[in-house]
Amino acid sequence: MDFLKPATVLDLKNIRDELVKMEDTIIFKFIERSHFPTCPTVYKENDPHLPIPDFEGSFLDWALMHSEMTDSQIRRFESPDETPFFPDKILKPILPSIQYPRVLASYSPEVNFNNEIKEVYINQITHLISRYDGESWENFGSVATIDIQCLQSLSRRIHFGKFVAEAKFQADRPLYIKMIQEKDIDGIYRNITNSAVEEKILERLRVKAEVYGVDPTNKAGYRKITPAYLVDIYKKLVIPLTKKVEVDYLLRRLECE
Amino acid sequence: MDFLKPATVLDLKNIRDELVKMEDTIIFKFIERSHFPTCPTVYKENDPHLPIPDFEGSFLDWALMHSEMTDSQIRRFESPDETPFFPDKILKPILPSIQYPRVLASYSPEVNFNNEIKEVYINQITHLISRYDGESWENFGSVATIDIQCLQSLSRRIHFGKFVAEAKFQADRPLYIKMIQEKDIDGIYRNITNSAVEEKILERLRVKAEVYGVDPTNKAGYRKITPAYLVDIYKKLVIPLTKKVEVDYLLRRLECE
Repeated sequence: MDFLKPATVLDLKNIRDELVKMEDTIIFKFIERSHFPTCPTVYKENDPHLPIPDFEGSFLDWALMHSEMTDSQIRRFESPDETPFFPDKILKPILPSIQYPRVLASYSPEVNFNNEIKEVYINQITHLISRYDGESWENFGSVATIDIQCLQSLSRRIHFGKFVAEAKFQADRPLYIKMIQEKDIDGIYRNITNSAVEEKILERLRVKAEVYGVDPTNKAGYRKITPAYLVDIYKKLVIPLTKKVEVDYLLRRLECE
Repeated sequence: MDFLKPATVLDLKNIRDELVKMEDTIIFKFIERSHFPTCPTVYKENDPHLPIPDFEGSFLDWALMHSEMTDSQIRRFESPDETPFFPDKILKPILPSIQYPRVLASYSPEVNFNNEIKEVYINQITHLISRYDGESWENFGSVATIDIQCLQSLSRRIHFGKFVAEAKFQADRPLYIKMIQEKDIDGIYRNITNSAVEEKILERLRVKAEVYGVDPTNKAGYRKITPAYLVDIYKKLVIPLTKKVEVDYLLRRLECE
């Protein structure tokens, strides 16, 4: 997949290859997160135990916002597959812009589910992937750093739904135009859902969690990630959120016809 | 290992467990890097094709420096196991300091091999782990982001030699004091080297590269990392650099007796 060549980006086979690669990335980040406890204080806004001067938000918010500010200067959010958590705070790149050919509709950056992704990550995912429920004061920095990586990989995976949606739209314009005009949300959901593909994803995740989740030189050792909760995270959170992105993107698609 | 409890930090068993965990981290980062070509322009100082306003250094330097500036504000470099690449640029934490009990000698932050690590990473490691030799202009930001993670994991692993050195010093003060006084560098090298342990590390890496390096659901597919070069990177670069850290740290150890 090459974002400078639109045809490669809207090829469903390439999209799937990219999603497979992202599975590995997400699992590796979860494994890194698994060494630490949940650390709820990292996520509390304006916590008196962790007061951040001149900032409204959590410790994670502070770190994520500053990380995005730096990343935006090196053009991270010019790339159509990156979606900021703090779109109001991103800065002008210090480098000349890359003129990406348009692949997605112009409103695409407004389809941004990052607040929901962050909420789901904090309230559900961290409880599944952390070592235990509890604080670890001296690791807040490490935890926030890994959380940023987890969130950004989840965000990229979930917002990749836009490319899936655009590819499906272009593959059957008359059908999608009709459903969009009729606001037939159920119809859109039915048409973007491929249960066989979903089952294959979950099956692949089971194997990957099995293999990557334990040190291969010490299989009796501590298991860092389990197939059960990895499959759950995808089945109940990642896949449904991806579909929400697809549907939201499609519902506005006629603005650009 | 708990940096608030010195005894746990200088326990060689705990140090080894931590080093094993870091192997996984390093492999996962290398795998992420393996999706991209070498991108030499990312590492060129003052490259006319990638001019960075008001900055002397490479694109990677710019990104790494700004990332360290943010990280320093959330106390990254207060932790005795983190070593900055730009020690002159780190900022004051926005949070109250953690009062880590002293485990290492007070000069320990001056034992900083990051310039050498960066040089070895750019000139040797990227050529082994990248997809191919070449540029990919639209991926410079992604490449720099992953390079930062690779460099920081390598730096943490290699500078962990300080804890190994301190543990060994404390375990046999008379021997080490004598060798240090006599500037017996060969003797120090001999005493910090445990060939059986090194062989075990390399054997573990072979297995991990074998297992992690290929998609377990598609073993005939593209191999992202090979045992041969992972073992080479450790044998020729990581382990020797770790020993250099140990020796440099030990040679000054009597300053604090």
